[in-house]
Amino acid sequence: MGERRGGIVRRMTARPENAHQARLLRLLRDNGSNSRAQMGDLVDLSRSKLAVEVDRLLETGLVVADGLAPSRGGRRSHNIRLAPTLRFLGVDIGATSINVAVTNAELEVLGQLNQPMDVREGPVAVFEHVLSMAAKLKASGVAEGFDGAGIGVPGPVRFPEGVPVAPPIMPGWDGFPVREALSQELGCPVMVDNDVNLMAMGEQHAGVARSVGDFLCVKIGTGIGCGIVVGGEVYRGTTGSAGDIGHIQVEPEGRACVCGNRGCLEAHFSGAALAGDAEQAAREGRSVQLAARLETAGRLTAEDVSAAAAAGDAVALELIREGGKRLGQVIAGLVSFFNPGLVVIGGGVTGLGHTLLASVRTQVYKQSLPLATGNLPIVLGELGPAAGAIGAARLISDHVFSPA
Amino acid sequence: MGERRGGIVRRMTARPENAHQARLLRLLRDNGSNSRAQMGDLVDLSRSKLAVEVDRLLETGLVVADGLAPSRGGRRSHNIRLAPTLRFLGVDIGATSINVAVTNAELEVLGQLNQPMDVREGPVAVFEHVLSMAAKLKASGVAEGFDGAGIGVPGPVRFPEGVPVAPPIMPGWDGFPVREALSQELGCPVMVDNDVNLMAMGEQHAGVARSVGDFLCVKIGTGIGCGIVVGGEVYRGTTGSAGDIGHIQVEPEGRACVCGNRGCLEAHFSGAALAGDAEQAAREGRSVQLAARLETAGRLTAEDVSAAAAAGDAVALELIREGGKRLGQVIAGLVSFFNPGLVVIGGGVTGLGHTLLASVRTQVYKQSLPLATGNLPIVLGELGPAAGAIGAARLISDHVFSPA
Repeated sequence: MGERRGGIVRRMTARPENAHQARLLRLLRDNGSNSRAQMGDLVDLSRSKLAVEVDRLLETGLVVADGLAPSRGGRRSHNIRLAPTLRFLGVDIGATSINVAVTNAELEVLGQLNQPMDVREGPVAVFEHVLSMAAKLKASGVAEGFDGAGIGVPGPVRFPEGVPVAPPIMPGWDGFPVREALSQELGCPVMVDNDVNLMAMGEQHAGVARSVGDFLCVKIGTGIGCGIVVGGEVYRGTTGSAGDIGHIQVEPEGRACVCGNRGCLEAHFSGAALAGDAEQAAREGRSVQLAARLETAGRLTAEDVSAAAAAGDAVALELIREGGKRLGQVIAGLVSFFNPGLVVIGGGVTGLGHTLLASVRTQVYKQSLPLATGNLPIVLGELGPAAGAIGAARLISDHVFSPA
Repeated sequence: MGERRGGIVRRMTARPENAHQARLLRLLRDNGSNSRAQMGDLVDLSRSKLAVEVDRLLETGLVVADGLAPSRGGRRSHNIRLAPTLRFLGVDIGATSINVAVTNAELEVLGQLNQPMDVREGPVAVFEHVLSMAAKLKASGVAEGFDGAGIGVPGPVRFPEGVPVAPPIMPGWDGFPVREALSQELGCPVMVDNDVNLMAMGEQHAGVARSVGDFLCVKIGTGIGCGIVVGGEVYRGTTGSAGDIGHIQVEPEGRACVCGNRGCLEAHFSGAALAGDAEQAAREGRSVQLAARLETAGRLTAEDVSAAAAAGDAVALELIREGGKRLGQVIAGLVSFFNPGLVVIGGGVTGLGHTLLASVRTQVYKQSLPLATGNLPIVLGELGPAAGAIGAARLISDHVFSPA
């Protein structure tokens, strides 16, 4: 099964031999156990051709027989499923936390861990956390090893090489060979992507965007980013920076932004901006609740604003509404431009929930043309903080389930 | 060759039988005459399989032999080219003019006509113009009939059905069955698309965007729209309104727009807005040149502003610069979001030329992040007013050169 190399057992996971096998594997991943007959219907292969490909997949060990399927009139056919021993590791590195999940081949989460961290510690320190979290998950018994790992980082990625590029909030990460380094350490194939793209893939695979071809997924964390899905595929742009909406200008002479410009969306609304605004309101004595929280914790976060709003604090509510309006301004433009079938809002501050959503919706429905908004749902993500890690597992499964 | 039906000769153009033949036809369209050997290299078909497909295409009459190719060592192979009798009609209906071109199968323009028109006359009147222009082109000897026609209209289109939908500047066009009606009249297959998408396809086929996979094509005419190309394919959005950037807000409390909102890009900068601003400047005595032109013509157009600017009129130059800044604000946001490999600016007011371009560039390079703009050319279209008609011919050729 494996080859030991410097303490790491490298699992020798087989890869499909051709595009037909790849399609069959992805079908089993997305739909679960399936009869040969059903699979033949879905992939449009002749019975004999299908039998050849399934037999080859059985030989590689990527799929296994799974009992007899219900009769469809003739001889009962065997069910086929992905090997139950396959394991993917999904890693979602945010600006302030790491989320790690282990999934089976159908991307069901078998175990996950979350821990706070500061991405500014740099890649070496951060990946030590990741490896120790992966080891803990292994020790808990959910995996013996990994057949692949997907890694999300909070900045643009040169996707083909799996290398972060010019990440504004991640000093020390520029050009770090994440893919290569982690592939060595974990002993399995690794793919790297921007965290927002992975959140979009997660919501597409198992969340609210399951049946939508063209959609946007806006992640509000420390910063703000947007995953773009076109025809079911993540669109990454020419240099991997597509969806970088945090620096779209919302106020010509607005606040100074870390990027050097003024009036960027992120400077006016993001997890960080919200925390800053809340601290100011607390210090100026405008909110008793926020002041109390500031006194207790020494600092405020977006979660504090969310909690204060839930408790009816007028200043906190107003901060969220104002932020939603700013975000809505930008999303309205994107809706006019991209005409998506769905807009998903997720990330750390979705605790802001329905107040934020109402504010965003009001702005978008007011500002975009009816043809683009007529049937446009704007909704919160379904998977919460797990979306990124599930998307990461999906990313690496796409890779492992494609011809080598 | 054809079948007469109500005065129209319906040409019985063959269609490719499979995806391989379709690829070969498109290859010959895009690269011109080609040897069998070269084609085999490009489409990755075995020699024998290629021979079968080429022979079938020769039988259908879609391709013809075209002399012997230079020797590559062995037996000299025959060149193959698309049938020289194939003709496509490309029709670009703008808000105020119609451009019609006849092309051969390689989409070379063999003849074209342009005439002013008001799209508000409604589809019946407009298509009478189109049919009479097509008849004139036939009479001039460039075509005996058409193997297909592509039609661009200045509004959103439900692409699968070829029907304009809720076109803001086109009363009477909503739901008009353009595709069906013109297919009857012209006796050939017809495809309909938004004029801006066709301009993008034209510049992609024969203009400045030839080798670029992901790009934006901004058309400044009476209104403003944007063609979006993703991986070489036009992206039309969920309801066909993608690229509708004219109503993105550039000024929160800005000018009233026909759409009912305030501060839309189109209200601040477009052919119509520019003409309005110029007339106001003329009436207020701020520009002698514009006043003189207004007195002569009774009204001003974007072309007048362009001419006045070329003659050094300071007010005209300032109007163009200010407009370029507004447009640049919007494009900057789109560049951050979409991370294109190229931005093309075209349409009727490209007479505004380099002054406009300089202003747009300044704004985009200032406002978008370096990662997205580092290698981003922002250029004028190469094909001028012919771009839309060439794109329309390209659209229908994609249809004709795909399996029935």
